[in-house]
Amino acid sequence: MFELLKRDTQTKARLGRLTTAHGVVDTPVFMPVGTQASVKALDPRELREMGTQIILGNTYHLNIRPGLDIIRAAGGLHRFMNWELPILTDSGGFQVFSLAKIRTIKPHGVEFRSHLDGSPLFLGPKESMEIQRVLGSDIAMVFDECPPHDAPPKEQRQAVERTIRWARECREQPRAPGQLVFGIVQGGSNPALREECAKELVAMEFDGYAIGGVSVGEPEPDMLKAIEFTEPFLPAAKARYAMGLGTPAQMIELIARGVDMFDCVLPTRIARTGTAVTHAGAFALKGSAHKTDFGPIEEGCECYACRTFTRAYLRHLLRANEILGLRMVSVHNSHLYLKVMTEVRAAIAAGTFAEFYREFIANYTPSQKILAHRRREVER
Amino acid sequence: MFELLKRDTQTKARLGRLTTAHGVVDTPVFMPVGTQASVKALDPRELREMGTQIILGNTYHLNIRPGLDIIRAAGGLHRFMNWELPILTDSGGFQVFSLAKIRTIKPHGVEFRSHLDGSPLFLGPKESMEIQRVLGSDIAMVFDECPPHDAPPKEQRQAVERTIRWARECREQPRAPGQLVFGIVQGGSNPALREECAKELVAMEFDGYAIGGVSVGEPEPDMLKAIEFTEPFLPAAKARYAMGLGTPAQMIELIARGVDMFDCVLPTRIARTGTAVTHAGAFALKGSAHKTDFGPIEEGCECYACRTFTRAYLRHLLRANEILGLRMVSVHNSHLYLKVMTEVRAAIAAGTFAEFYREFIANYTPSQKILAHRRREVER
Repeated sequence: MFELLKRDTQTKARLGRLTTAHGVVDTPVFMPVGTQASVKALDPRELREMGTQIILGNTYHLNIRPGLDIIRAAGGLHRFMNWELPILTDSGGFQVFSLAKIRTIKPHGVEFRSHLDGSPLFLGPKESMEIQRVLGSDIAMVFDECPPHDAPPKEQRQAVERTIRWARECREQPRAPGQLVFGIVQGGSNPALREECAKELVAMEFDGYAIGGVSVGEPEPDMLKAIEFTEPFLPAAKARYAMGLGTPAQMIELIARGVDMFDCVLPTRIARTGTAVTHAGAFALKGSAHKTDFGPIEEGCECYACRTFTRAYLRHLLRANEILGLRMVSVHNSHLYLKVMTEVRAAIAAGTFAEFYREFIANYTPSQKILAHRRREVER
Repeated sequence: MFELLKRDTQTKARLGRLTTAHGVVDTPVFMPVGTQASVKALDPRELREMGTQIILGNTYHLNIRPGLDIIRAAGGLHRFMNWELPILTDSGGFQVFSLAKIRTIKPHGVEFRSHLDGSPLFLGPKESMEIQRVLGSDIAMVFDECPPHDAPPKEQRQAVERTIRWARECREQPRAPGQLVFGIVQGGSNPALREECAKELVAMEFDGYAIGGVSVGEPEPDMLKAIEFTEPFLPAAKARYAMGLGTPAQMIELIARGVDMFDCVLPTRIARTGTAVTHAGAFALKGSAHKTDFGPIEEGCECYACRTFTRAYLRHLLRANEILGLRMVSVHNSHLYLKVMTEVRAAIAAGTFAEFYREFIANYTPSQKILAHRRREVER
């Protein structure tokens, strides 16, 4: 299912190909996030045009709304949302632990209340896999426990133990035809826990491995360490997926550390508040600097927004709360994420990734938040 | 500029062609409304694909935001918003009288405060025409006074007098190259005022004539009467435009009464609350009846939304507040308005409009609000 086509000689970057029931995915890949069966503000044609290979859906959200009966009646998630390419579904583990307010962890899952109407729900390995089977995703994720990054060591250990036990349960559940299942490594910033969790999951022979417990509010250096603590214990012959990450520069850093797959709400989320991402970093389009700036968001960009509109016009739309403004920034940002992955794959194929990596990072200005974390790191 | 190609023998319906600086407009025509330099939620490609011939922009809004300097620097409204087909700009008269809270009417215009930040502004015939000249619209509208439908007779008379005087001032202002100017007939529900206003404006020889003071909260029968009181005094050789109207059935009624041009925010406005329009009337897509309804919004519709998505999926998107939901209903509703006009033009050309008209009205269920007004009318 996963073919490792090439390994970079100077970094851990890998070129690969993942074959799923709905088509082939070239890696490294960015997967736009369609939590509620829609990549926010974008339509399937726009997603295809910008080169999307695979999108995400979410077990927790789709099970609550529209509910499984409706998606079953539609003939699965692909047909419900009219998306013919691959879909990866997250298991709902992350959402149960981050969204649901009142919860009780039981041996076989979690009792919680819907974040929408407070109704009592239960989600565990068995339920999550059954939902993902009905959704008919190409890649299902195991139901894991994802503690916050500042959880005490005891909680991190318990989460790893449950994650391992639940992964084994998930492994045994029925699947949709051709559905792949990925394990999720937890363990926070603890190298021993990461190693233990990875080894246990690898022994279960999943179709791919995700690194979870990242992008849960931790500083960037801790995130990078969590990846570095985990990667050496993952088999080279399987795809590796860093969940919920990141900025373009972070994705490049992680590709250099051996990661193949990414998903992130960032490009569409920041678009809705008027922040555009380019190869040089992110900037606020609403700023008065763009009042009469009649260039595109990014010079040379081939996305529909950059081919059609100026910064001055988009700034006006955003200030006037016109939906076309956030739509077009969502188009550009998502296109940029996908475009960077295309460039990465070309560089690995050409044997020039190390150079690409250096230049990309040198050219990219990280956000103030990330820079502040880096400064604190240096001062430690 | 306007060619009258054919007149229906059984009704007052007309087939025409209006030539503007940015292209030809086949009439009867529906003009999607882009108040703030964007037809809400739609992009130019979508507008082209659904057959849009001409869109609206608004003098009052664009002058306040982004401001004239920015649009001047962009090279006019067409280039600012990247719309190459014709644009009609409303004069701002309606908005000054409906949006601006504090206003003082002066001989040469209106002092008012911006609805956005309360800053003092002045708009009169001279200012409105100068703004429209800079916007570079293909059709400019005269600056008129539009009183509410329940304004006392004295106020209606004053509004007509000012509208006539201001129209004369507008007539004399400089224009953009090739820019047409339409007069606006006021006069409320008073046949004598309508006749007087129409005759005075026609004597000034405008490029076309709008019927204003409709769609200002009046019951449907009053709206139809206002049109019937005005139309006989408008020259056959010029285009007639009913401002701010209406439902598909109302547009058909008005076409049968000799109107050629329409604009209305209805298709995109009701789309944002989940109401879809079809040849049979409007309905709420969020209703539970559509839970597992896997047909399109309208059977046989060729719009992108109907070709791509089911009612069940769109209902889910609308309930989950996904932007794609309101986008797709905006696509369908706007397409439906344009499609109905295409059907109207074909029927007039084929000499079958009277039949089309009867069938359309018989098949179309008006909203409860319109039905309630009709019932009251019958009871009088």
